[in-house]
Amino acid sequence: MTSSELNQEIRRKKSFLCVGLDSDPLKIPAHLNREPYPVFEFNKAIIDATHDLAIAYKPNLAFYEAMGTEGMKQLEMTVDHIRSVDPNLFIIADAKRGDIGNTAEQYARAFFIHYDFDAITLSPYMGRDSVEPFLQFPGKWAILLALTSNPGASDFQMQRFSDGEPLYEKVLRESSAWGTDDNLMYVVGATRPEYLKRIRKIIPDHFLLVPGVGAQGGSLDMVIDNGRSAHGGLLINNSRGIIFAGKEKDFAEKARAAAEEMVASMSR
Amino acid sequence: MTSSELNQEIRRKKSFLCVGLDSDPLKIPAHLNREPYPVFEFNKAIIDATHDLAIAYKPNLAFYEAMGTEGMKQLEMTVDHIRSVDPNLFIIADAKRGDIGNTAEQYARAFFIHYDFDAITLSPYMGRDSVEPFLQFPGKWAILLALTSNPGASDFQMQRFSDGEPLYEKVLRESSAWGTDDNLMYVVGATRPEYLKRIRKIIPDHFLLVPGVGAQGGSLDMVIDNGRSAHGGLLINNSRGIIFAGKEKDFAEKARAAAEEMVASMSR
Repeated sequence: MTSSELNQEIRRKKSFLCVGLDSDPLKIPAHLNREPYPVFEFNKAIIDATHDLAIAYKPNLAFYEAMGTEGMKQLEMTVDHIRSVDPNLFIIADAKRGDIGNTAEQYARAFFIHYDFDAITLSPYMGRDSVEPFLQFPGKWAILLALTSNPGASDFQMQRFSDGEPLYEKVLRESSAWGTDDNLMYVVGATRPEYLKRIRKIIPDHFLLVPGVGAQGGSLDMVIDNGRSAHGGLLINNSRGIIFAGKEKDFAEKARAAAEEMVASMSR
Repeated sequence: MTSSELNQEIRRKKSFLCVGLDSDPLKIPAHLNREPYPVFEFNKAIIDATHDLAIAYKPNLAFYEAMGTEGMKQLEMTVDHIRSVDPNLFIIADAKRGDIGNTAEQYARAFFIHYDFDAITLSPYMGRDSVEPFLQFPGKWAILLALTSNPGASDFQMQRFSDGEPLYEKVLRESSAWGTDDNLMYVVGATRPEYLKRIRKIIPDHFLLVPGVGAQGGSLDMVIDNGRSAHGGLLINNSRGIIFAGKEKDFAEKARAAAEEMVASMSR
């Protein structure tokens, strides 16, 4: 998918919504555990209830890997289901990988070819040769962690180098030369929306994937005002605030209501 | 496993060897592809041929994930086999993860409980709260990337902060306070052995996991001279140089010969 195709979906749906499928098997409604694939059934119901509102889905791989082979099977089923519902939905593997050369190629093949994800999140710590293997697949994207929404972001990301530039800005500036705004995005946490204006000066056109709205307390309005590009350029993620909006049999309707409310505030 | 138990194994076997199970299914001997679990059969033969020489095994998860559920199944079988051969072998999930709170806990549970790994490699980019969840499991270890062996290490890791300290040193100094030398190790590439002396001044007792000897060109002698602690404190990894030493039916004997040669140079 190209950035202009993605921006077109954003305009068409009047939405920046990315639904995070952090589908913890211990938190899904109890009645689903009678099904052979409870997490897949949960995801399927959420997807069926929200796909006309969402631009993207982002399964967080930790929750699937924690279940071993059963989890990975249900991840495959989930990606296949999203594809079958609407081929224009953007699917992000929230994997936060970061490895070199031959290993990075393995991961790229795994996520882009085997699982058919559109994008994968990566840590920039290992530098250019840990990112480039992910930029060789037409229509596929690498999403680099830049400034994350957790307290630990201040440990290293916000530390300033001798030229005055903080680590996360160096990551943005250096890495934006490794690819294009058609194959590189950045994670910038909604808990630090005041940084978004500066970030937009460094990378005016790249897509930003913004976690931390909702449960982590980031402001949606500030993220949109400071973070949008001329053409759109935002994917705003909400995980638990949508998928766990309800905990009973009507969880999918509750998820839809939460998604509708969020999308309504996006299109004001 | 504690650091003193690990150092005891190092003294008993006169070896720092960690065998990297980067078992690319496209590179294993062709005759194994007749088996139902070719990668597991490959790993089993390598383990059976080298377990008296090695201190640790390090499956690189990319190669298993690239095969989907079939790969993860063979990873489980591999860990179980190592455990059954010798419970004192140290098993590292080379996963290079890095995520926060609730996701990090999922990964910790996945790798430490579901798969029964002793240790997992992590990226430090997201800071303290991305590492701490891995330090809550008695006898289990987090291994943080500090200075990696690839060219991209110079993009960010070697950049100096305004106080003159390079990023990788700040990672060592800050993070060593988050745990102890019984639950934290560091990755330092063998391609930069001249940095090991400085690193030993910052963290005199922590274990170092050293990749990059062999295929990537690092010198074994320099790594041992500059990197060992008072009690041992090194795991020196070789992947392709051992597991792909032979490509025919005698691949396990060739792997043993390569491991023997490496261990002989370690105990000089």
